[in-house]
Amino acid sequence: TLTLPPDKLLFTPGPLTTSATVKNAMLRDLGSRDSEFIELVRSVRRRVLALAGVSQASGYEAVLVQGSGTYGIEAVVSSVLPRDGKLLVLVNGAYGARIATIARVHGIAFQELVCAEDEPVEPLAVEQALAADPALTHVSLVHCETSTGALNPLAEIGAVVGRARKGFLVDSMSGFGAIPLDVSALGIDFLITSANKCIEGVPGFSIVIARREALEASEGRARTLSLDLLAQWRGLERDGQFRFTPPTHAILAFDRALRELEAEGGVHGRGERYAANQRTLVEGMRALGFRTFLPRALHSPVITTFLFPDDACFRFEEFYAGLSRKGFVIYPGKLTRAACFRVGHAGHLGTRDILALLEAMRATLAEMGVALPAKR
Amino acid sequence: TLTLPPDKLLFTPGPLTTSATVKNAMLRDLGSRDSEFIELVRSVRRRVLALAGVSQASGYEAVLVQGSGTYGIEAVVSSVLPRDGKLLVLVNGAYGARIATIARVHGIAFQELVCAEDEPVEPLAVEQALAADPALTHVSLVHCETSTGALNPLAEIGAVVGRARKGFLVDSMSGFGAIPLDVSALGIDFLITSANKCIEGVPGFSIVIARREALEASEGRARTLSLDLLAQWRGLERDGQFRFTPPTHAILAFDRALRELEAEGGVHGRGERYAANQRTLVEGMRALGFRTFLPRALHSPVITTFLFPDDACFRFEEFYAGLSRKGFVIYPGKLTRAACFRVGHAGHLGTRDILALLEAMRATLAEMGVALPAKR
Repeated sequence: TLTLPPDKLLFTPGPLTTSATVKNAMLRDLGSRDSEFIELVRSVRRRVLALAGVSQASGYEAVLVQGSGTYGIEAVVSSVLPRDGKLLVLVNGAYGARIATIARVHGIAFQELVCAEDEPVEPLAVEQALAADPALTHVSLVHCETSTGALNPLAEIGAVVGRARKGFLVDSMSGFGAIPLDVSALGIDFLITSANKCIEGVPGFSIVIARREALEASEGRARTLSLDLLAQWRGLERDGQFRFTPPTHAILAFDRALRELEAEGGVHGRGERYAANQRTLVEGMRALGFRTFLPRALHSPVITTFLFPDDACFRFEEFYAGLSRKGFVIYPGKLTRAACFRVGHAGHLGTRDILALLEAMRATLAEMGVALPAKR
Repeated sequence: TLTLPPDKLLFTPGPLTTSATVKNAMLRDLGSRDSEFIELVRSVRRRVLALAGVSQASGYEAVLVQGSGTYGIEAVVSSVLPRDGKLLVLVNGAYGARIATIARVHGIAFQELVCAEDEPVEPLAVEQALAADPALTHVSLVHCETSTGALNPLAEIGAVVGRARKGFLVDSMSGFGAIPLDVSALGIDFLITSANKCIEGVPGFSIVIARREALEASEGRARTLSLDLLAQWRGLERDGQFRFTPPTHAILAFDRALRELEAEGGVHGRGERYAANQRTLVEGMRALGFRTFLPRALHSPVITTFLFPDDACFRFEEFYAGLSRKGFVIYPGKLTRAACFRVGHAGHLGTRDILALLEAMRATLAEMGVALPAKR
């Protein structure tokens, strides 16, 4: 008896398209204090650690924080940096810069190391910056810069930070769940990700994976109540309950999403699907005359930035609207200099969906009068 | 093909039981930048203002803030109080005290006016406190203290605060949507409520209703990025988009919940259902030998606190578990002194549900060997 309008497919940085079964998992009302919900939260926290290659036994903790991904980042930065701490913020895009904004708002000393948006953060430059300023206590890195899709050299930078014995904060909003990583081997103290990126849940909370010793050392440092990471963890550990009303439905969806991730072959399997999505997309869009903003080596499996084609008939908002009418949502660019847009390939999307998007692009470009390259 | 386990009914302070149609509204994935979602957010913000008796034209704004209700309170306190401001925190329960905690964490000067948990905040005491300390710039009041269910005299205190020309912040988490109020007539500058209390949406965000002049005057005062109320509003006004990923599914549910509230006769109709729930509950529980913690005059239509009966066989956890096994979730007390528990009567619940709960209580008390009063 329930007729739903057909949803557009989301080729965006998020919220992403999720499976029908993930959404169906939300058709329940659980009490936040009831044993079923408490067990659900415990299970979800354990399985997220496993995705990161760690466990409570190996000294790590998963903390869920209500709100968007940025709330999770702010929870870490504002709860972990000591009053006399100083953060080296590695920036090659908007999300790196946002971490600097968070530090600034909280009056936390920081230094930005700004790299070009089409280049990775350079490990050698990080090493030099750390050597030049002994006041630095922590380093933040965006694993996968969602603003461009650039993948930063996490392992190499982790090694540099580890040798310098600094705290290491990693924003892996768009990488975690599709790019295999071992939080312990990489020397990560705090990794932040989101329920609705590669894990393919719905938006509503972020997830912090923390080295327990570093978390416990943050006592007395929190600068807010809602985003107090240590207090949030202690609440969850004490009785399995959130300090403040949790997004029960989003957590039900997340539990289901984790099961589907596990069934797909875990992080490895999911990463392969996204990589195949990207190959199909980039190849198909090249055939339509588009060029990627980043060199191939920097691509991540989550989102790709394309330059506007060199054709006076191309106007992005018209292209966007034409695709939207056909049932496909893409995303504008978030770059300071290049005229570009983004196409996401994460979420509950496969080759068939990418091919349908490509066909819609071809039709929309034709409607706009944009010249297509001659068939090879 | 979808078989759902039967859910327990939630007689709690929240998350609450919601209607099947509200949950079904979440079975979609909307792009956060797509015109349909932007229009949805605009509509929801407009209709929430209407529930408060105000509109953009009359100088008010609705701002949605990702996270739980406490996030909304912290957004207001940490975004609105100036550096040299001082907050008079009116306290007659745990939620009043939480506002003091928020002020303390942010280094905001404050003074608590603490009243007994079974008494309303006294308007005369507020007047005296304001007269005694001219440094006070703002006053916070919890409209309906969820920790006890006590309803505070909002109009009388609003008049005192208005005469003293102080900023007036009202936590109406558990009142808004079921207790008719006019934000403008009451002189409220900022009212905070939640998606999943009397409006009967799912948890995921809070709602701030702000007098626009007071909101604009808060420029430069925010102490966080995520909970920066003015920036959140400006983002929503600029292009209809959230600054950070919104809980799209929770907002879809909220839209549907607002429609159902409107269909029930608005705030008045909903308040009548809750009041009827409460009458049935209190009468039925009195017949089972329970007494309410608060005098009748202080009761709010959302939740009621009951004292443990004077019977050695009564153990709350056993009572809770017995009801839970039968499909009914109640809630522990949150009082500093009295041995008590709480039963909520808000949410998608009617007389039939209350009667079923009463019957389950009778059976559980019998299982525990608690003596029931002789039938009249």
